[in-house]
Amino acid sequence: MLRSARLALATLASAAPAAQWGSSYSGGAAVGAAQLGEHLRSGGGAAPFSAQAAEDPLYASISEQLDGFRSAGTFKVERTITTPQGPSVGVEGAQHEVLNFCANNYLGLSNHPAVASAAIEAIRTHGFGLSSVRFICGTQDLHKQLEARISRFHGTEATILYPSCFDANAGLFEALLGPGDAIISDELNHASIIDGVRLCKAARYRYKHMDVEDLAKCLQQATDAGSRIKLVATDGVFSMDGDVAPLREIVEMVDRFPGTYLFVDECHATGFLGATGRGTDEACGVRGRVDIINSTLGKALGGATGGYTTGRADLVTLLRQRARPYLFSNTLAPAVAGASLAVFDLLESSTELRDKLEANTHRFRAAMTSAGFKLRPGSHPIVPIMLGDAALATEMAARMLKRGIYVVGFSYPVVPKGLARIRVQLSAAHESEHIDAAVSAFVEVGKELGVIP
Amino acid sequence: MLRSARLALATLASAAPAAQWGSSYSGGAAVGAAQLGEHLRSGGGAAPFSAQAAEDPLYASISEQLDGFRSAGTFKVERTITTPQGPSVGVEGAQHEVLNFCANNYLGLSNHPAVASAAIEAIRTHGFGLSSVRFICGTQDLHKQLEARISRFHGTEATILYPSCFDANAGLFEALLGPGDAIISDELNHASIIDGVRLCKAARYRYKHMDVEDLAKCLQQATDAGSRIKLVATDGVFSMDGDVAPLREIVEMVDRFPGTYLFVDECHATGFLGATGRGTDEACGVRGRVDIINSTLGKALGGATGGYTTGRADLVTLLRQRARPYLFSNTLAPAVAGASLAVFDLLESSTELRDKLEANTHRFRAAMTSAGFKLRPGSHPIVPIMLGDAALATEMAARMLKRGIYVVGFSYPVVPKGLARIRVQLSAAHESEHIDAAVSAFVEVGKELGVIP
Repeated sequence: MLRSARLALATLASAAPAAQWGSSYSGGAAVGAAQLGEHLRSGGGAAPFSAQAAEDPLYASISEQLDGFRSAGTFKVERTITTPQGPSVGVEGAQHEVLNFCANNYLGLSNHPAVASAAIEAIRTHGFGLSSVRFICGTQDLHKQLEARISRFHGTEATILYPSCFDANAGLFEALLGPGDAIISDELNHASIIDGVRLCKAARYRYKHMDVEDLAKCLQQATDAGSRIKLVATDGVFSMDGDVAPLREIVEMVDRFPGTYLFVDECHATGFLGATGRGTDEACGVRGRVDIINSTLGKALGGATGGYTTGRADLVTLLRQRARPYLFSNTLAPAVAGASLAVFDLLESSTELRDKLEANTHRFRAAMTSAGFKLRPGSHPIVPIMLGDAALATEMAARMLKRGIYVVGFSYPVVPKGLARIRVQLSAAHESEHIDAAVSAFVEVGKELGVIP
Repeated sequence: MLRSARLALATLASAAPAAQWGSSYSGGAAVGAAQLGEHLRSGGGAAPFSAQAAEDPLYASISEQLDGFRSAGTFKVERTITTPQGPSVGVEGAQHEVLNFCANNYLGLSNHPAVASAAIEAIRTHGFGLSSVRFICGTQDLHKQLEARISRFHGTEATILYPSCFDANAGLFEALLGPGDAIISDELNHASIIDGVRLCKAARYRYKHMDVEDLAKCLQQATDAGSRIKLVATDGVFSMDGDVAPLREIVEMVDRFPGTYLFVDECHATGFLGATGRGTDEACGVRGRVDIINSTLGKALGGATGGYTTGRADLVTLLRQRARPYLFSNTLAPAVAGASLAVFDLLESSTELRDKLEANTHRFRAAMTSAGFKLRPGSHPIVPIMLGDAALATEMAARMLKRGIYVVGFSYPVVPKGLARIRVQLSAAHESEHIDAAVSAFVEVGKELGVIP
């Protein structure tokens, strides 16, 4: 169809609202697995169909959807950054660097000298790429060392690396569970958990966000339905709110139902949550009581790419035989494996970075609260500044950028209607003066816009 | 359930054959999307269930499956490499380096000095990681430059980068197609295409491998069923056989059915197939007539990680708004983006590397054929040496390794019963003496084992 004349598709714009990828809380993550397909396609299929669309239906559908995103104000534009990631970044078109408060660079390791040097050294000793999956000729000593290192960090038996934690989540459920089993999932779990669940034939139950009583009801239902293996799945920390899952209560509930196991996605926790940064299990006092942990090398731990599953040895061995994004996608690049070893050196030698992040978070939360802003309560470096109105969130982010502070507003459909917010993310790379500058700018803009008195 | 006593699960071994990830041709790739779930779980669910298994069902199931892999001889063990990827590699436990004939390092760029230097330079100028998805703060000038460069290379309007081509395939179909549409897929397409199709609600048709008449039948069925958008999906080159899809005939067939488009996965073609290495479209004389191309930076183009979709601008723009592995997973690491720009510099400045690969492939195929080996016909650097018997393929690979040649045997369930083979992959990094050494070893071992007279 590439040969067909390019049609004046803009005329089709008004036909139907476009399908929206994330017409739900948490960028689509709140949409249940079973409903998601329909949800995403709710626009396109129902559109009245013109003669032009019949002639070139793919590009007609695309054009319609794009117009829908634009008219709904949910079209995402990408800002081009010209510097390494850090407390401040250069942005194309801007004269000065801006302070960055929207990266998952929790520990400031994305451009830490020791991490960057280790990456460069690994390229020198182990090359740029391996052009192979793990089991043919894509396993280097670096990969085995890193897997052992991650197991030691989490106190688990074994670890398997993936190109990303998205892939670790996509590959996990299908490899472990089948039609006789059940997955019981927090309704706000991340999109990649949802996709993993969609690829699996186990029965699906969703419990209300962090509601352990509702989890119990689902576990009882699954038990009554005769499910063999029951796997409870939750994010350790939820990315839009910074909510920390009540893992102690969840673990206790899991223990009450025989044949029940716990999976936790630790992407927004590994490296900094808990006294030694082990994650949500440590923060909740349940280390060693989570069966399966998935996490990422792409956020606090250097931020390049890569994810993993860690748990019992047999489980990891089975994933090496069956997990499709592991078997059918490239191994991790040597640079990332080498740099990640340096990351664990840093994390195991000192709690300095996670302590600084904690102090930074406290400083920001305290100053913003005392200035009169309404924050979502908690102590996580994800700090949602609740504004309610979508236009207000957009305007506030724009005015903050003019003052040299880069933050992002989130509104419906990424978060529920009426809960628009700016999501600030603190980093150990921030110094006190960066935080104070951000607070000052928020106070100025907040007063201008009538958010605070 | 982690607290439960470790059970002596080995006693459960004989209960049932384990589920097998790839009980089909091409490592699972031959299994149709609709059937795949059941297929993968065919073992576990049917097993008789002991009291022990009832007490710890997840690890009982895992243990059973592992025993099944081991007893079927399909358990994959990973060999640990201690050097960069190249024509020869160091292997843990071996005294001498071995010549490597099993990487996807087609152009020898996995450790090319210019590519490695560009990666190191990008770490220096753009940092190690970005700790962000693209649309928040994960887009650097390097990413925009690379996307433009890929578009120029393929002669397309626009390109979107993904963490891997697995992710590009997983994200594509759902973002473009819905329940009223149809995907018509070659039965031997790669696992990642199958997973992408499984995540999409479009109707699914499978046509016989490279059979254009059967494709026509499927297109007629989809047309009769009233499908709106019809997307034909094929690998450009199939990884187990080195088969090149008949794109000219496919393009002509696509043109006969209104509302039909063509998607080609070019992972085993980009960079070296066709006179200037543009891929299968160039080799078949149909450049500009493929609607959507997905390909990888993880094979010929440096081999670290990364994939992309390239095609019309609107299509790419929509993927940026809707493709889940793009929206919810990290951006490509700066090192990979920077190194890939150097790769395209090399590819656009000369055809030397792809010419050398072609000559190497010819040299190997000619010598092996004249020695009496039965090769799967073709001219692709994937060269299957057909042996038939699985034990023979395993034994031959083992004896080759003893002679310093690293090749991998593939047998059922990865390829059909009776079609066991050794899959040799040539590289531009090989010199004539490497190829001659491999042929000599094959001849020696082939005579020992009675494969050739």
